Amino acid sequence: MYQDRIIIDGLQYCNWDRAYFETLKASGITAVHATLVYHETARETLTRFAEWNRHFEQHSDLIMPVMSMADIEAAKAAGKVGIFFGAQNCSPIDDEIGLIEVMRKQGLLIMQLTYNNQSLLATGCYEQEDSGVTRFGKQAIAEMNRVGMIIDMSHSAERSTLEAIDLSARPICISHANPASAHDALRNKSDEVIKSLASRGGLLGFSLYPFHLPDGSQCSLERFCQMIADTANLVGVEHLGIGSDLCLNQPQAVLEWMRNGRWSKAMDYGEGSSSNAGWPDALPWFCDNKGMENIYNGLLKQGFSDTETSQIMGGNWFSFLKDGLAPAK
Amino acid sequence: MYQDRIIIDGLQYCNWDRAYFETLKASGITAVHATLVYHETARETLTRFAEWNRHFEQHSDLIMPVMSMADIEAAKAAGKVGIFFGAQNCSPIDDEIGLIEVMRKQGLLIMQLTYNNQSLLATGCYEQEDSGVTRFGKQAIAEMNRVGMIIDMSHSAERSTLEAIDLSARPICISHANPASAHDALRNKSDEVIKSLASRGGLLGFSLYPFHLPDGSQCSLERFCQMIADTANLVGVEHLGIGSDLCLNQPQAVLEWMRNGRWSKAMDYGEGSSSNAGWPDALPWFCDNKGMENIYNGLLKQGFSDTETSQIMGGNWFSFLKDGLAPAK
Repeated sequence: MYQDRIIIDGLQYCNWDRAYFETLKASGITAVHATLVYHETARETLTRFAEWNRHFEQHSDLIMPVMSMADIEAAKAAGKVGIFFGAQNCSPIDDEIGLIEVMRKQGLLIMQLTYNNQSLLATGCYEQEDSGVTRFGKQAIAEMNRVGMIIDMSHSAERSTLEAIDLSARPICISHANPASAHDALRNKSDEVIKSLASRGGLLGFSLYPFHLPDGSQCSLERFCQMIADTANLVGVEHLGIGSDLCLNQPQAVLEWMRNGRWSKAMDYGEGSSSNAGWPDALPWFCDNKGMENIYNGLLKQGFSDTETSQIMGGNWFSFLKDGLAPAK
Repeated sequence: MYQDRIIIDGLQYCNWDRAYFETLKASGITAVHATLVYHETARETLTRFAEWNRHFEQHSDLIMPVMSMADIEAAKAAGKVGIFFGAQNCSPIDDEIGLIEVMRKQGLLIMQLTYNNQSLLATGCYEQEDSGVTRFGKQAIAEMNRVGMIIDMSHSAERSTLEAIDLSARPICISHANPASAHDALRNKSDEVIKSLASRGGLLGFSLYPFHLPDGSQCSLERFCQMIADTANLVGVEHLGIGSDLCLNQPQAVLEWMRNGRWSKAMDYGEGSSSNAGWPDALPWFCDNKGMENIYNGLLKQGFSDTETSQIMGGNWFSFLKDGLAPAK
């Protein structure tokens, strides 16, 4: 039964307010990887944490912070939604290796090494040249391994991603992206990356952001589940999860912050274009509190077993996070 | 026996390095309240935390971080020195109420509302006018109460201190100062303050900084213990501890940072003067790894019982912190 399972969405960046927390609770989701920042500096990241602390204080009947898998189990038992944090870029550590542990202690469990552009650590997927993991990047990977902060390469370029998988002593994730074989896009991942990721124990979260999907906003539930089945054939079920990239109720300004940060004077349209500059239309089967349950049922219909479906809907994220968040031995 | 007791020094700001950690361990001290920052902003405070994380990583055979009293008990059992952090000023929260919880989670257990000067929260002990706790200060006190961050008024002015004691729903501390009746100095506290502090369950840590002592660097151990006995007669033993204010091996530049921060173009000499601008001479009976044991024996000789002596040397700090660090009910 869907209601009995641990359901984890491996990435969301919605407009977090009480109404949305109620939607989340009604959706049956046990825990969500919430994006804390895109381009915020260390100092600005503290303010984002403070804003979330206020959410936890004001909406303690609906949500609770997650620092470990015990907290996810507690959330399930209490009927609350667990929230754990990730950064879509390495901006929270400024240029300082020691801030990895500081941010990890504050509750930043996951960090992308890059967001589309070249960062201090690695190359993003929109750069012309991918020079791989940098000197600082190699040290950051080792430090993230040490403190149990999970490396996420969702927005990174091919070579950098392959290098990060190799350099990391612990499995990494691509929290929200799809196979390029299903939809060719700079943000999606080659079979080589997906196979390398899986061979090292990593996890791929399938995205429901229309720009990452075959047929965009017209992608059917069946087509989405077919993509998952194809990937399971490639690398096995245990490396797959959901990372919906759901961005509900956000104004255009947030899309522009994601795409432009403070780095561009010209408008950068990311995966869109000047004639298609806004948020993509939501998928009709993934736009309200039935979204995750729809996927759950779609996977069963696709032929996945009960156990496999539960793994993809949360069990794999749970196991991956449990291992990945423990400090290095 | 001294060796069996939990010994807590309620304030130090030494030059933290391996040699000093070895001295600390040899001293039999169980835990130390280490000053993390004097004037550092929120961002700079993160770097101080990162530096301490590195100390904990490199010297894990000697020291360990303390977030709760269970950690102090673990330190005692492991024969390590527990370190817990405080700020001597409210600079780590910038102008942002939400940073109190952020800093508390990071490990800032204690915060002074002011350091000598007027702050955003209250008035320091060197100001001509003491306007009491500010609007922001009242909110900060309530928030510190809520999250279990301990209020310290060591460097605050009289009215502000009395107001903070009254406004706080939980007991506060004066971690390092002496009675003005023993030595009249702007940094020392009136009997009115000490009685008010104790009547609300607060704690006074006796300072060994020569500028706070009768006879300065010539103060005898007997005279120091007499001061404690006099204060015990005034308010009872259970409100008294040690907060040595020990600043060993620090260069002059650190003294100037403490006194001048970034606020003064002219040199401010704090408790010193232009003709006496340096660190005061250390007390011969409190300058090496026998310091706390000397006080322990001095208190026994002064006539305190075994139990009373243990309370003053650490038991009172332990109880005070145990209550004060728990989140509000």
